[in-house]
Amino acid sequence: MLKNMKKKWLFTPGPTPIPPEALLAMAQPIDYHRSEDTVALIKDVLEKLKHVFQTENDVLFLTSSGTGGMEGAVANLLSRGDKVIVIRSGKFGERWGDICTAFGVEIIPIDVTYGNSVDPQAVETLLVEHPDVKAVYATLCETSTGVLHDIEALARLTRVRPTLLIVDAVSGLGADDLQMDNWGVDVVVSCAQKGLMTPPGLSIVALNQRAWEAVERSDLPKYYFDFRKAYETGLQGSVPYTPAVTLLTALQCALNRICEEGIRRTIARHSRLAAATRSAVKALGLSLFAVSPANTVTSIRLPEAVDGKAFINLMLGEYGITYAGGQSQLSGKIVRIAHLGWMNENDVIVAISAFERGLVEIGCDIPLGAGVTAAQEVFRVLKY
Amino acid sequence: MLKNMKKKWLFTPGPTPIPPEALLAMAQPIDYHRSEDTVALIKDVLEKLKHVFQTENDVLFLTSSGTGGMEGAVANLLSRGDKVIVIRSGKFGERWGDICTAFGVEIIPIDVTYGNSVDPQAVETLLVEHPDVKAVYATLCETSTGVLHDIEALARLTRVRPTLLIVDAVSGLGADDLQMDNWGVDVVVSCAQKGLMTPPGLSIVALNQRAWEAVERSDLPKYYFDFRKAYETGLQGSVPYTPAVTLLTALQCALNRICEEGIRRTIARHSRLAAATRSAVKALGLSLFAVSPANTVTSIRLPEAVDGKAFINLMLGEYGITYAGGQSQLSGKIVRIAHLGWMNENDVIVAISAFERGLVEIGCDIPLGAGVTAAQEVFRVLKY
Repeated sequence: MLKNMKKKWLFTPGPTPIPPEALLAMAQPIDYHRSEDTVALIKDVLEKLKHVFQTENDVLFLTSSGTGGMEGAVANLLSRGDKVIVIRSGKFGERWGDICTAFGVEIIPIDVTYGNSVDPQAVETLLVEHPDVKAVYATLCETSTGVLHDIEALARLTRVRPTLLIVDAVSGLGADDLQMDNWGVDVVVSCAQKGLMTPPGLSIVALNQRAWEAVERSDLPKYYFDFRKAYETGLQGSVPYTPAVTLLTALQCALNRICEEGIRRTIARHSRLAAATRSAVKALGLSLFAVSPANTVTSIRLPEAVDGKAFINLMLGEYGITYAGGQSQLSGKIVRIAHLGWMNENDVIVAISAFERGLVEIGCDIPLGAGVTAAQEVFRVLKY
Repeated sequence: MLKNMKKKWLFTPGPTPIPPEALLAMAQPIDYHRSEDTVALIKDVLEKLKHVFQTENDVLFLTSSGTGGMEGAVANLLSRGDKVIVIRSGKFGERWGDICTAFGVEIIPIDVTYGNSVDPQAVETLLVEHPDVKAVYATLCETSTGVLHDIEALARLTRVRPTLLIVDAVSGLGADDLQMDNWGVDVVVSCAQKGLMTPPGLSIVALNQRAWEAVERSDLPKYYFDFRKAYETGLQGSVPYTPAVTLLTALQCALNRICEEGIRRTIARHSRLAAATRSAVKALGLSLFAVSPANTVTSIRLPEAVDGKAFINLMLGEYGITYAGGQSQLSGKIVRIAHLGWMNENDVIVAISAFERGLVEIGCDIPLGAGVTAAQEVFRVLKY
């Protein structure tokens, strides 16, 4: 394809496409972060985020990538020598463990085979064995494998114990259901550049009352990611340190869309896009990598003969399409197609049809058109 | 003024105005942070930053406000129980002390009266008394008072000792001279939203060889702000965690301007704007708050009768002009006018003329027009 006619399509699980009014909001002259307008902006954003988090708890934000919020959810909630359970089923579960270790927290890992989600029974066994664990660190959607974990089941275990449930919903928020209050999740960490359709640079965290009590007891060192300071200033529409004002204006635009759609419907939309993608993959004779696939991203096992990296490069170079490849030991073996954020049926059709053409081009024997047909069928049957 | 004809002018020491092409770059569809284009973007930005830092050392960046870089310059360089000298002459020097304390580092403070800069002799005395201090934490421009510290003199003391000199150049970089290599400064921390004319959300740090050796010895906990990881991935045009891609595209535009102007000339431009502003203040019969004023921002002592907060609000409400007021104990007592980043003579004339009209409006007896005339005279004499 001639470069000047190439139209870029981003199907990565973050950053995700930004709605046009959010892009244009960022092109406005910047405002002072202590102005009345910015105070109103921060208050509005924090209020609307509660709807997305499905919580009545106040939400706080930090100027950082999602990992900054994850670090905060360790440094603010634990003390030196504390023991925690960490569910590791991919790169992001492992990150919880790495952060805990960096801060001198003892971890009891549950290692889950990549592609699988954790068995809540295994977590319960550990909780019974180690009644002194302070927290369970879990992941809603393990972005590296496309797996959805059963957070509701985990919350049933922790909410009857003094143990906190701390969930990385960085990629999953707004795509996979996470009912913070109804289920009794203690801490939810997310960020802007996934389901929230905003450029990267903002991390968002919600804590319930139990979690705030743990914050009071915590003695791990923290400064920039101090939740208490972010929370207290946030209530006033303020911040302890200069925030990414530009990104907040974009986030406000994106939240306006989600709040108008309504979070339950937002999740239903993602569920439908994911169902169509999975149906297409099967119709092409390929298999899903995740046993319990998330709405966020679909990970597809590539045929052995296919060089995954070459395929990803072909799609970008010739089709203008960015899929995500596999990470670490999955590199070259899977392709991940996100249907996340500012997306609807038409985006998914583009993702699937290009996927088909690309596979045929590299010599795969797949039935051209079968994926798109299967997806269309899902769209016909499943109403949004 | 009717709101729909109000044109906003931002004279705060961060965020500062963004050049138009940088604003429009942010309105482009977002790119994947692992794409070839983003790899090239990161490499280009890091290379151009070296010019601004006046260093041959590699530079690293973090997605955070400047305070995140400051935390990193504590957590990456020190170990538990280390002793450091902290120069406190305002809110930002105090922040160095607060971060050190949060991380269990013992501080030996030098408290300087607000409005004054540190006496290098006092630092030398402490260095002789405490030969085991690991670092001196200093500030180039103390934004809260408008004071410039003599970093060159401090570097003369530290470079002949094993003690590191770690400088907060968050607001000063690109406006006040800081010759990292020539002077022998070990660590420089800055950020995007000041002299670099980019929206907030990026922190930038440069370390010399001595500093990297200290990083190897450091045992304080860090994860998100791990300098080693940011540095090593940065060399490959990559990042450990999703960066604020949008802000990087804006930073690239801004750096193109600075590199074309040349950092020495960029500093000369700021020096000239600051000289004109100071001359105007004196011509109006007012006095400067800073004994050694910075090029970054001019802090002006308000007449006793003036309610500083009311004045700031009047300027914003009626003139569309945002000046910064005083912080903490200086609240209501000083006005700070930044001449920082994407600014030239015409901006300064607007800042001064509106300042004059506002003062007259609240009943101050100042010679209307005298400030602008004095500034024009400086512009006539001082060539850029």
